[in-house]
Amino acid sequence: MSKQDTKQTLLEIGRSAFLRNGFNHTGINEVLETAGVPKGSFYYYFSSKEDFGLQVLDYHGQGDLAALDGFIADETLPPLARLRAYFDANIQVLAAQGCGRGCLIGNLGQEMADQSEAFRRKLDEVMSNSIAAIQVCLEQAQRNGDLDATQNAGELAEFCLSSWQGAVLRMKVVKSDAPLQAFIHSLFDIVLKN
Amino acid sequence: MSKQDTKQTLLEIGRSAFLRNGFNHTGINEVLETAGVPKGSFYYYFSSKEDFGLQVLDYHGQGDLAALDGFIADETLPPLARLRAYFDANIQVLAAQGCGRGCLIGNLGQEMADQSEAFRRKLDEVMSNSIAAIQVCLEQAQRNGDLDATQNAGELAEFCLSSWQGAVLRMKVVKSDAPLQAFIHSLFDIVLKN
Repeated sequence: MSKQDTKQTLLEIGRSAFLRNGFNHTGINEVLETAGVPKGSFYYYFSSKEDFGLQVLDYHGQGDLAALDGFIADETLPPLARLRAYFDANIQVLAAQGCGRGCLIGNLGQEMADQSEAFRRKLDEVMSNSIAAIQVCLEQAQRNGDLDATQNAGELAEFCLSSWQGAVLRMKVVKSDAPLQAFIHSLFDIVLKN
Repeated sequence: MSKQDTKQTLLEIGRSAFLRNGFNHTGINEVLETAGVPKGSFYYYFSSKEDFGLQVLDYHGQGDLAALDGFIADETLPPLARLRAYFDANIQVLAAQGCGRGCLIGNLGQEMADQSEAFRRKLDEVMSNSIAAIQVCLEQAQRNGDLDATQNAGELAEFCLSSWQGAVLRMKVVKSDAPLQAFIHSLFDIVLKN
């Protein structure tokens, strides 16, 4: 593997392991074994397990933001339909996982926000990036006349993101996508109506 | 202490410890030390750590449901104002905790729903009880003409509960009550408007 491949492999394996078992219950040794990478190589890329966790969050957040931005840039749809398509795509992924595991950001937010200030700041950064992208989309809808222009788009974007996280948490408990469908319906047919 | 007092003391201490450290990171020995109760006494009330966790969830859920029912029964306010008062009271508690820790149900939902089927069922039961109480309140609002009677009150109640859980999660990450205020405003001034 090239250096870039090795690092990306570790980030991918870390992401799966953290999603499955959380940060505290994931051992670096199990990540190294799965990757077939020696410990020295790990410490070439990451200064500590915490540094690894933060870089996994960055990697995941960048991928998720790129996906969100891709949906928002789709000018064949009106702005609110782009946002709905993004959430619908995420529901398909979660349903394919049997409505378990949830979302890395929500899981680590719950686990780490009170435990590590570095994690808390990184989680806030990743969430804030998504909220900012959603806000841009809502403002486009307001300019198009598809959404009440007197609404506070920043606050609505905050509500979209946190309500989504709550629906994913409830999905994990009820093991069905019904809370995600209630989210889609309540958000797009009630909140984001003109 | 009477038997009933001993059991309640253990449940209270367990609730605080699970809220602070989660279920897996809480040791029974630390609960016993804090309570000043011998191990044999613990196993008189609880058959295992899991049984203790489930009874703590029941205890917490019953207290929370009694509080919610108390707000909903307050006929000096219109139904939606009762619900808003319930969430406002919870925001005051969370703000007084420095916007950390969050909510026991959300925290254990995130931690345990995929780990233990017994926890998942108990968490679903506690959440479903709250959703059912919220639904009753929304149906009262519909009968009073304060809420669009064509809306699906059960789905809206599901959305209220999961959006609240998501706002609490986001609060933990951002360490401010802004997500809770965005929840209150978006829910009561947009979603639950007639």
